[in-house]
Amino acid sequence: MAASEKFQGWLGLDQESVKGNMQWGEFEPKKWAEDDVDIEISHCGICGSDLHTLQSGWNSTPYPCVVGHEIIGTAIRVGKNVKHIRVGDRVGVGAQARSCLGADCAECTNGNESYCARGNVNTYGSVYPKGEGKSYGGYATHNRTNAHFVFKIPDAIPSELAAPMMCAGITVYSPLTRNGCGPGKSVGIVGVGGLGHFGILFSKALGADRVVALSRRANKRADALALGADLYIATDDAEEDAKWNKTHKRTLDLIVSTISSPKMPMRKYLELLKVGGSFVQVGLPDGGVLPNINAFTLVGNGIKVGGSAIGAPHEIQEMLKLAAEKEIKPWVTVRPMSDANMAIVDMEAGKARYRYVLKAPTAESRL
Amino acid sequence: MAASEKFQGWLGLDQESVKGNMQWGEFEPKKWAEDDVDIEISHCGICGSDLHTLQSGWNSTPYPCVVGHEIIGTAIRVGKNVKHIRVGDRVGVGAQARSCLGADCAECTNGNESYCARGNVNTYGSVYPKGEGKSYGGYATHNRTNAHFVFKIPDAIPSELAAPMMCAGITVYSPLTRNGCGPGKSVGIVGVGGLGHFGILFSKALGADRVVALSRRANKRADALALGADLYIATDDAEEDAKWNKTHKRTLDLIVSTISSPKMPMRKYLELLKVGGSFVQVGLPDGGVLPNINAFTLVGNGIKVGGSAIGAPHEIQEMLKLAAEKEIKPWVTVRPMSDANMAIVDMEAGKARYRYVLKAPTAESRL
Repeated sequence: MAASEKFQGWLGLDQESVKGNMQWGEFEPKKWAEDDVDIEISHCGICGSDLHTLQSGWNSTPYPCVVGHEIIGTAIRVGKNVKHIRVGDRVGVGAQARSCLGADCAECTNGNESYCARGNVNTYGSVYPKGEGKSYGGYATHNRTNAHFVFKIPDAIPSELAAPMMCAGITVYSPLTRNGCGPGKSVGIVGVGGLGHFGILFSKALGADRVVALSRRANKRADALALGADLYIATDDAEEDAKWNKTHKRTLDLIVSTISSPKMPMRKYLELLKVGGSFVQVGLPDGGVLPNINAFTLVGNGIKVGGSAIGAPHEIQEMLKLAAEKEIKPWVTVRPMSDANMAIVDMEAGKARYRYVLKAPTAESRL
Repeated sequence: MAASEKFQGWLGLDQESVKGNMQWGEFEPKKWAEDDVDIEISHCGICGSDLHTLQSGWNSTPYPCVVGHEIIGTAIRVGKNVKHIRVGDRVGVGAQARSCLGADCAECTNGNESYCARGNVNTYGSVYPKGEGKSYGGYATHNRTNAHFVFKIPDAIPSELAAPMMCAGITVYSPLTRNGCGPGKSVGIVGVGGLGHFGILFSKALGADRVVALSRRANKRADALALGADLYIATDDAEEDAKWNKTHKRTLDLIVSTISSPKMPMRKYLELLKVGGSFVQVGLPDGGVLPNINAFTLVGNGIKVGGSAIGAPHEIQEMLKLAAEKEIKPWVTVRPMSDANMAIVDMEAGKARYRYVLKAPTAESRL
């Protein structure tokens, strides 16, 4: 890396940064290790987690922080220990930058790296152990990440479409595949947003017989159907079927919930599950409150409520392969990296349809 | 049936009956149908549900009520449409007396009769549709039940041991098998009582590598280990390992919870699950409250919380086959049917180790 290629990015300095007050500046990446890859960033998606972290919504954020964990770019430096990435490769990084990778870790040796309890490092906002420094995300010129969490991007996927797959995509892909989404299955997706729109796309691509999109208002029906949903339920619209939970009772094998409102009508969602079905939460309500989970509902219907966190490296690779083969097209709006502050304000206002992707000034589309 | 063989049993006339005030008397069984079997009862186990129903604990009980749904006896009248039962057969009845059995019912055609939403009838305390009468349980001389829910008892199982399998047994057998209990798996059983002691027995019989029993106090350790548990955790005993949830973190593939206290330490139980594991509730807390199910716990560990209700006829048959082959010996105390009032008072006081079985005066042990 030339001396001129310093790591620079949009720094969140305090909780106010989420209001469009990030400041461009230099940052010090983690200490170089021979398992790492340095990436010149071309694109980075904007995820709801970015906003939560900028405002210390879940935990106290170790400012300064550069957010962004839907990173696409070019490998410009590759550690000696890295086998699967070469300088010049187009690569991606998601929400996880490292796990313990110990030979004695049940999670890391079983394809469950995203649940590693010993050495998880988020792509941004984490502090590495042993004085290695902090992790910084993708609203930046460069990123440095352990190669186990750096993925080659198939040629068939344009960078601006690959970017949001790295977090939004894998977060729904993993629970779909782990819960048997495929031919013969009916799947519900709660929330039609960045994650939810991937839920519809992937459910169809995986071959589900029927995909039902659920959102509060009727105003996303056309989008949901255009994305491939077979049915759209507006759960909170008096003009629509007010008894939707009865009308569609026990019709779904699996529901993936991408919303995070503690006011979600959980009891009604659960009524939609077939016996043996699962409701999998991927959104994180503030405080983690999941309302109205009643033993009588669970026991009487033989159903489960679970959760899922992003996905493991092997799943990211499978997802990218599927996306390339099936030519999956998420709906993204590309915005210049220089407009990051305006973009996060628009994201917070719910304007994204359904993902903003920041594009670096020097990035050329590769397709 | 001779005219002298009227249906008689211990009638609960009101909520006070649970205090040992049931009264012996005649009752009118459901109207005879050619799908039914009349059974001369030899044994009936005492289940916690009996106490709940006598005192209208879950719903308003349609008094008079005869409880008992762990019934063993001899078929003395068999409807013309019944193929698998003959007069003289030793048979059993569990907690379910009928489902809709419709050819268009997703549950009844898929081995999920216990979740039938259209025509479920409990063995006692239910009112049949179309003026067919009420259902009456097994603290009685006779029982009349639809043959689909009447099971031949294998010769190898003594009646007093078969009785508690019909509800307590199947209620834990079903979630164990539906959640993969077997070789290579570690299973937790919460509660060492009527259901929990079956949980230990069946987990071992199904070949689980490791069975962990959890109960509040240390005083059931010897019993749990004698039943086959590999480890016993006293969750509420200061003398024991107070950090049991950390000591045994992520060690169990499956937990079946047989307790019904809304004070259960749910968060700590859930910490015991491996990634991808399930906690299945079969006990029903008053009001159904399941405390401390947090989205961060579910998402961060990739786990699920579910419920399970008794089991389907095909599962009852499988369970009886396993119990016969593996010579499973539940711990029962046989008491005379005439002592039913004293027995339910002792049951309520928690004295059963681990199941009381009422024996009819004329019953002769068949083994």
